[in-house]
Amino acid sequence: MAPHPFDPVTPAELRLAVKILENAFPGVALRYKVIDLQEPIKKDVVPYIEAERLCVSLPKKPARLLMAMFHRLDTKSFMKALINIDTRVLLHVKEIPKDIQGPCDADELIEMEQLCLEHPAVKAEVEKMKLPPGVTVCSDPWIYGTDDPKETRRLMQFYMYLVDTEDPQHNHYSLPCTFSPVFDSNTKELVRIDYLSTGSDHSTKPTQPWKPVKAVQYAHDLLDEPTRTDLKPYIVQQPEGPSFSVNGNFVHWQKWRFHVGFNYREGMVLYGVTYDRRNVFYRLAVNEMTVPYGVLDPRAPYHRKQAFDIGDVGFGVTANQLSLGCDCLGHIKYFDGYRIDSKGNPVLLKNVLCLHEQENGIQHKHTNYRSQAATVVRNRQLVLQMICTVANYEYIFAWIFDQAGNIELEVRATGILSTMPIDEGVSVPFGTNVAPGVMAAYHQHIFSMRIDPAIDGHNNTVIYQDSVPMPDDPDTNPYGVGYVQETKVIKLSTAADLSVPDARVFKIRNDNIINPTSGKPVAYKLHALPSQLMLMHPRSFNMKRAQFATRPIWVTKYRDDELYAASEFTNQSKGSSGVEQWVAREDNVENTDVVLWHTFALTHNPRPEDFPVMPMEKVSIMLRPDGFFEKNPALDVPQSTQNFNQSSLHISSEKNEAKHCSCPSTSKL
Amino acid sequence: MAPHPFDPVTPAELRLAVKILENAFPGVALRYKVIDLQEPIKKDVVPYIEAERLCVSLPKKPARLLMAMFHRLDTKSFMKALINIDTRVLLHVKEIPKDIQGPCDADELIEMEQLCLEHPAVKAEVEKMKLPPGVTVCSDPWIYGTDDPKETRRLMQFYMYLVDTEDPQHNHYSLPCTFSPVFDSNTKELVRIDYLSTGSDHSTKPTQPWKPVKAVQYAHDLLDEPTRTDLKPYIVQQPEGPSFSVNGNFVHWQKWRFHVGFNYREGMVLYGVTYDRRNVFYRLAVNEMTVPYGVLDPRAPYHRKQAFDIGDVGFGVTANQLSLGCDCLGHIKYFDGYRIDSKGNPVLLKNVLCLHEQENGIQHKHTNYRSQAATVVRNRQLVLQMICTVANYEYIFAWIFDQAGNIELEVRATGILSTMPIDEGVSVPFGTNVAPGVMAAYHQHIFSMRIDPAIDGHNNTVIYQDSVPMPDDPDTNPYGVGYVQETKVIKLSTAADLSVPDARVFKIRNDNIINPTSGKPVAYKLHALPSQLMLMHPRSFNMKRAQFATRPIWVTKYRDDELYAASEFTNQSKGSSGVEQWVAREDNVENTDVVLWHTFALTHNPRPEDFPVMPMEKVSIMLRPDGFFEKNPALDVPQSTQNFNQSSLHISSEKNEAKHCSCPSTSKL
Repeated sequence: MAPHPFDPVTPAELRLAVKILENAFPGVALRYKVIDLQEPIKKDVVPYIEAERLCVSLPKKPARLLMAMFHRLDTKSFMKALINIDTRVLLHVKEIPKDIQGPCDADELIEMEQLCLEHPAVKAEVEKMKLPPGVTVCSDPWIYGTDDPKETRRLMQFYMYLVDTEDPQHNHYSLPCTFSPVFDSNTKELVRIDYLSTGSDHSTKPTQPWKPVKAVQYAHDLLDEPTRTDLKPYIVQQPEGPSFSVNGNFVHWQKWRFHVGFNYREGMVLYGVTYDRRNVFYRLAVNEMTVPYGVLDPRAPYHRKQAFDIGDVGFGVTANQLSLGCDCLGHIKYFDGYRIDSKGNPVLLKNVLCLHEQENGIQHKHTNYRSQAATVVRNRQLVLQMICTVANYEYIFAWIFDQAGNIELEVRATGILSTMPIDEGVSVPFGTNVAPGVMAAYHQHIFSMRIDPAIDGHNNTVIYQDSVPMPDDPDTNPYGVGYVQETKVIKLSTAADLSVPDARVFKIRNDNIINPTSGKPVAYKLHALPSQLMLMHPRSFNMKRAQFATRPIWVTKYRDDELYAASEFTNQSKGSSGVEQWVAREDNVENTDVVLWHTFALTHNPRPEDFPVMPMEKVSIMLRPDGFFEKNPALDVPQSTQNFNQSSLHISSEKNEAKHCSCPSTSKL
Repeated sequence: MAPHPFDPVTPAELRLAVKILENAFPGVALRYKVIDLQEPIKKDVVPYIEAERLCVSLPKKPARLLMAMFHRLDTKSFMKALINIDTRVLLHVKEIPKDIQGPCDADELIEMEQLCLEHPAVKAEVEKMKLPPGVTVCSDPWIYGTDDPKETRRLMQFYMYLVDTEDPQHNHYSLPCTFSPVFDSNTKELVRIDYLSTGSDHSTKPTQPWKPVKAVQYAHDLLDEPTRTDLKPYIVQQPEGPSFSVNGNFVHWQKWRFHVGFNYREGMVLYGVTYDRRNVFYRLAVNEMTVPYGVLDPRAPYHRKQAFDIGDVGFGVTANQLSLGCDCLGHIKYFDGYRIDSKGNPVLLKNVLCLHEQENGIQHKHTNYRSQAATVVRNRQLVLQMICTVANYEYIFAWIFDQAGNIELEVRATGILSTMPIDEGVSVPFGTNVAPGVMAAYHQHIFSMRIDPAIDGHNNTVIYQDSVPMPDDPDTNPYGVGYVQETKVIKLSTAADLSVPDARVFKIRNDNIINPTSGKPVAYKLHALPSQLMLMHPRSFNMKRAQFATRPIWVTKYRDDELYAASEFTNQSKGSSGVEQWVAREDNVENTDVVLWHTFALTHNPRPEDFPVMPMEKVSIMLRPDGFFEKNPALDVPQSTQNFNQSSLHISSEKNEAKHCSCPSTSKL
């Protein structure tokens, strides 16, 4: 059966696309970077999903289009093509200008990492460290960033680390080296070797013999301390199975219906989200993120440490293969994806998304204090999760649906800090010493969430409302207690700010549909995350390349192809041509097809506790109905009962009694 | 065995205290309001808990003191007494000035509610409504608030509602009446009847015949719509029991040890919190909250709607009796409390706190992308929970401990909106119409959290740090990327502000103990909640009475008896004498016994979805180690495995396949 318009690319489609490209370039060797689903054209796909929603006979599916990025090995050109898979037609192909770099791909990273380690100049530096037997070198490829507007080479920098164990979970980030080779990944040539400052200033010294120090390990097998033995099993049982049902990538759970999308770049995407057959969102995704490091200048080359983890590499291609019983509890459904390798073979990305239910405590409760009769309903949730490993770091993304019409985006940051070498006894005001000889620099994680709403239809309006005191007037406000909501309608595409002191709330509403209870248009609100945005100066490349990171809210008129806040190509970009340019069009965004973008961030000044692996730090954004329903939509969720939940009562006994002290002879104190 | 100094009051102690008071006032009838544990004197109790912590022989327990509030029925005086239970001595007793009102107590509320309903004038108003058979009237007692600085009577206002079903879970808040009697609860006299504005201005009209309308119900038995049938059981099993152990009110779980306190006012209190036998916090509690309504002036009498749910009534006495399998899942330990009734009898408050473990997804993960070997550890949590019903509203408080040294305070707001009558077709700019004839006014919930730290000892310092860009200097910051943390040490007691744009973080540190990894003092940080604070004007009584609600951070030097941010007596208070006065002393708060107070708030402009019972809205505050540990303290938590977790894999089959449409004949669309 032909895929649904929102289905991820299939291996058959990947093979067909390769064949079409090979036919189009006879005799030319091609190196593939990306082949993936081209985002469906909205006006073509909406009639199809509307027919699904309304249970009427389906129109013809819109054309299935694939996008390909590849290099011609004869001319060395970087190409982009669009292919109609249904008609097997190469619709167009274009050469990308030389100064634009495509994202890194998996094969390139592995190839360049190996090439770096085998280069004689790198080996010569390693030699200088006079490593003892059993200690080897590891190179972590890093996005090059930008510091030269004239640069057109495809560059990659490498941070080098030592490995002091053969365990596959060695923490090389605990043993950073002091040199950093830079390669041209097109010509495979060494460009130069940078040397890292390790003192309190920006001076550098030649590579020194290594002073042996033990790596701080995170893997259980490598720890000196024993594992805790007093954690008892906590087992989630769903004897009647899950409350969700799935058909391909289409999911139905508790009045919610949506399509799970997956692509190499954003990874997880939600499409066609409806509640009780009412349209809510057309498309939801985390579309970009950037991680600038705030390292004290001029401590080169760290000023170039600015990753766009989505645009430079992609969360689809870095998504973990999830394992049953490790990454989630309960009854789990997994989704796969596919990517292409450099030779044009489809690669299965197995179990990259998982779907399961979770319990989140009480949803609503009321006790009538006179009768003591209580209504209590628990908050069951549906979670779609993806975990991405971007070299040292891990991001855990979850879209969480509940029974009261809420959709939450939860982001957890974990994994290993990007470390830098530091001399003994030195500390710096822009980083934390996290292990002997190891400093973790201050940095930010700045995310962009793209919300393509369909609140009871596609013509929506973004507004914001402030809670403001009434003027202090003895006549109209004699007791001084009055406050009202002031509403501002966003009529033209623009950026906007959050305001905690005003309790500002952004809403997406449909002015054509009035809620009979409130008499106001139906709406969803964005429970945004107020956060410190990018700290770098406007003249810095970090800021120029990530304009989306300068404002928390952007409102644009929908256009196909405007999906990524920092524009399509971020790798070594010199500036952005993304959301800041789209708002500048000053399009009408009132009662039309509108897109809301939310930038949120973590300023991460590392703690010693964040090493050698970071306890997750969690942020959350909510999309909450605000007059979308006539009353609490979770009223019909069944009462929470012991019969259903089967909890057990703790009976205290001598056996399980807590003791202030263990037997003194075993106490450490 | 004599209670631990932190143990809640026992029934034997309550009986003994009553006896001591009766002996002290021979022949005088006493009406009891509160008898409870007097907060132990810190300098007396610290040596005792330090001996426990260090596993050395225990010194003598500090004196067990009880506090009592009562009325002499002969002189009508309101009295406060302090009793030494060990020595059976009444240490002192004093008469409280006439213009100070004690909190409402349970017997008083019930008595006055009944008295109101039976008063001829109230009955006469009810008569005017010409209620059909089967419809009755219900009166909700309400804290009177303040609008007259000369008032010395003990007043109580009543909001009146209709009841159209005999079901004990009738939602009378859906049928508000238009008059509000005011009583003197000392003399039991009707003071007057206020009439409520129901139009768009502040005019009122006499009580009208009721125009029948159906109440919007929340209880499952009263709903028109059927209950969902597609929610499958989700059962938490702990076959080996919980990971916690309990001894009386002392709890041990995963290196955490603490004492569970309980009192009539704050309800749940945490005492003597240690991690791996290191001191962390001496006392943690939500100590006050106020709920002002922002109703448009001069819409009397609503300007007086300002509840101090803790000081005016108490979260201990309003705490729900929790039920197994309804209010939490898994293996549950319950704690009881006791209060006194007006006659001096101990009343058991059964199962008012519950303790259980929960699962919160991934704690930390790292995948070595070369070997695909992954370390993943799940986030097990210990939750101590209390649910309070304050007439219409419910608050759910949870202290959540995890394995990485974090303590979270989670607050959920649920229950029923405090409603007001409104005429058909009218809407107002300070409230939302949530049902026919029902308006829910904008309001705020402003909480105070009191943090009495003991970070590796009792001499602590509060600091805050901002992340700020380095100056834009071409020499010292050539790339414009540098940022540093600026530290401000709080040396004198003061209020302070949060700052999202600066990523400001408040830390409590112990300058006497240096973390060997970072070289910095050990510390915990407060992950505060930036929120809109009180919107009322400084001249309003709302603001004068709740000065704590004007600033998010307060730092005071510890003093016994300084526990409640808005002072001891809030009921009908004319002003505050709380935290704002204590900071004004400008005490030294550097490297001494310091207390950190955090004010956080929800501005609640109701949604139609918040009626007839509100889907919980959740906020969270975290206390996180920040250089307290030398590395991630959760490293020794075992690897997450399928063997331990026993998840199950979803296999798609035709039976469980999601369908876009049901059979057309059953589809509503």
